[in-house]
Amino acid sequence: MAMTAFESPAELAPLPFDAAKLNGLSERMIRSHWENNYGGSVKALAAVKQRLAQAQGDKDMPPYVYNDLKREHLLRTGSVVFHELYFGNLGGSGQPGTAERQAIDGSFGNFEAWESEFRRIGTGLGGGSGWVVLGFNSHLKQLENYWLADHAHGPAAAQPILVMDMYEHSYQMDFGAGAARYIDAFFRNIQWEAVARRLEAARRT
Amino acid sequence: MAMTAFESPAELAPLPFDAAKLNGLSERMIRSHWENNYGGSVKALAAVKQRLAQAQGDKDMPPYVYNDLKREHLLRTGSVVFHELYFGNLGGSGQPGTAERQAIDGSFGNFEAWESEFRRIGTGLGGGSGWVVLGFNSHLKQLENYWLADHAHGPAAAQPILVMDMYEHSYQMDFGAGAARYIDAFFRNIQWEAVARRLEAARRT
Amino acid sequence: MAMTAFESPAELAPLPFDAAKLNGLSERMIRSHWENNYGGSVKALAAVKQRLAQAQGDKDMPPYVYNDLKREHLLRTGSVVFHELYFGNLGGSGQPGTAERQAIDGSFGNFEAWESEFRRIGTGLGGGSGWVVLGFNSHLKQLENYWLADHAHGPAAAQPILVMDMYEHSYQMDFGAGAARYIDAFFRNIQWEAVARRLEAARRT
Amino acid sequence: MAMTAFESPAELAPLPFDAAKLNGLSERMIRSHWENNYGGSVKALAAVKQRLAQAQGDKDMPPYVYNDLKREHLLRTGSVVFHELYFGNLGGSGQPGTAERQAIDGSFGNFEAWESEFRRIGTGLGGGSGWVVLGFNSHLKQLENYWLADHAHGPAAAQPILVMDMYEHSYQMDFGAGAARYIDAFFRNIQWEAVARRLEAARRT
Repeated sequence: MAMTAFESPAELAPLPFDAAKLNGLSERMIRSHWENNYGGSVKALAAVKQRLAQAQGDKDMPPYVYNDLKREHLLRTGSVVFHELYFGNLGGSGQPGTAERQAIDGSFGNFEAWESEFRRIGTGLGGGSGWVVLGFNSHLKQLENYWLADHAHGPAAAQPILVMDMYEHSYQMDFGAGAARYIDAFFRNIQWEAVARRLEAARRT
Repeated sequence: MAMTAFESPAELAPLPFDAAKLNGLSERMIRSHWENNYGGSVKALAAVKQRLAQAQGDKDMPPYVYNDLKREHLLRTGSVVFHELYFGNLGGSGQPGTAERQAIDGSFGNFEAWESEFRRIGTGLGGGSGWVVLGFNSHLKQLENYWLADHAHGPAAAQPILVMDMYEHSYQMDFGAGAARYIDAFFRNIQWEAVARRLEAARRT
Repeated sequence: MAMTAFESPAELAPLPFDAAKLNGLSERMIRSHWENNYGGSVKALAAVKQRLAQAQGDKDMPPYVYNDLKREHLLRTGSVVFHELYFGNLGGSGQPGTAERQAIDGSFGNFEAWESEFRRIGTGLGGGSGWVVLGFNSHLKQLENYWLADHAHGPAAAQPILVMDMYEHSYQMDFGAGAARYIDAFFRNIQWEAVARRLEAARRT
Repeated sequence: MAMTAFESPAELAPLPFDAAKLNGLSERMIRSHWENNYGGSVKALAAVKQRLAQAQGDKDMPPYVYNDLKREHLLRTGSVVFHELYFGNLGGSGQPGTAERQAIDGSFGNFEAWESEFRRIGTGLGGGSGWVVLGFNSHLKQLENYWLADHAHGPAAAQPILVMDMYEHSYQMDFGAGAARYIDAFFRNIQWEAVARRLEAARRT
């Protein structure tokens, strides 16, 4: 285990692609997203962890106030992890390989059924916050799509395989309220090799 | 993968211990919890999955109404998974073994620091709903405690290692509003062998 | 205005009925609910308000950490207000008077349709936390039933007219998981005169 | 009461100001906000109300699935009401009058203390969803600021007096991630006469 319980990532994970070269997602938006939203959560997580560490010895802090910080911890952990996975599954050709296609076919009947549900969840999240996650539930042994209202939501015991950010900072700058056009662009840029690697790792759980 | 995306567990997982023999948690309460709360969610998850399957072909259902069902899906999945893990980590001696003690020491400095935070989160959840989860975050490579407000919350990319239910149905029947006495009883009954197994599996992710 | 922004109620509002004389709700449960759950929130609200007052001058506290306290503020305000309204609409005969019956008929078609929806929302909240609220929306000029997931949820610009607590501490002690029997008992004890007074006041907004 | 319980607003309330003439908030952004986000919720609320009306006779719908629609009802009601109040308190000079200044002074010690907290809550909501509400709590007789995570949150028994939208669609188009500059612009455009009218009405409750 790389970090103890009250530590947090020291630095931002760099974008694993050239931000100027995505297909239909502007460098300006991607850089702002990475720096301000993801970067803001890396800093916030560090600040909250520090406050939690200090609170270990503070007997005057009521447990429900302690939990207010633990909620922020959960929220910022979600933001850091999901953003790293999101950027990590962008920068690709948008063309799924055989292995991940077969896995998705096996769970959803066919690839189109999966894509249709994934997009529908994203569309329904338009105008608000949230994430769409294709996840492998290691307890139920099931590959399914999840709707998340914000960074603090998450499917119990599931490993995220493909992650799409639906917070408005993911698309407003390029598309305004046009969430559907953003979802199209997201699909064109999926890095399916990363998806395949995560799927293989998750199945070992 | 055992189940396709729109399937759900067909039956309740049996209690992995004799409900009459826990130390300070009554058979009546444990049985009601298992049958009504866990069992209710198994049935609800099946009903929601069936509605989701039907909705695949329903073009008149707006995506945000579809997502109302996906929220119920997330919530009930959390309830089913966390309850199975919760009952799965009860029925033991309450005495941690060397391996899990060392892992916890390594992350929290010492076992007492970990136990103190885990109990504090639980105490703060008294009088409401929620879960306390010791989880291994397979993305951050970190073992930490999480506060969850309800079944739909969850730490991104984390495998639950030890799970404590703080919904009031976990203790009201035996302890009334006395959440602290329930937490004591929970600790007396932890099945640490199960915790050790989960930890070992999670570290392989 | 009786209180400035960072003040909170100094004392618990006494129960407006004899706790030993409700019809099918035990004195033990009502007293525990009033003292531990409502009383706990009165104390928590005072503690949070004090921390907020101190934080006014604390420039080192990041705004998102400040908001963690504001979330607790919202939650505890909801708990204090809804509990006072809940106990305030108990202790009666369960027999609605003409004025409130007519208002409900006018909005829901008939009284049975209203009662049916109100009970259905309550039943669906069984096993978790939440409130059912008949509220008058002073912006939309509409009397309707609302589902609330917890104390922090609430209908925008609405005045609560009739409030039913569905947190498990409202019924577990007497009824176990039997939320439906609790709802029956709640209806037998509604203090409709209080409902009528609130409705009249709300309509003046 | 203008509407029965299963009705909803038939049309969008027009903007009460010339969208081309706000000070530092672009016509393009305001029109998109009004049409897509507010307008989307007016349509969604109508669709959900219709589904709820149909579900009155549907005995096969489990109460928790019914409540999924009631959650959407709560969320969309909040969106419609808060948006109408938000646009309703824009288009002004940003100069508070004597009456509302005195009311705010009385509750917060001085106007600057109030403005500072209101801005701090807004800043903390940057990068996500939510609302900041100055509200008059008609149960507690208290004028205070509230943090809301989304449209479904709300302060119990409070009348909104001044409302600031912090969903990212309120500022991303003009300011990118610069939420602080949006808050500055919001303050320059507050229609304080509307605030004064709401305050006077709320105090009558």
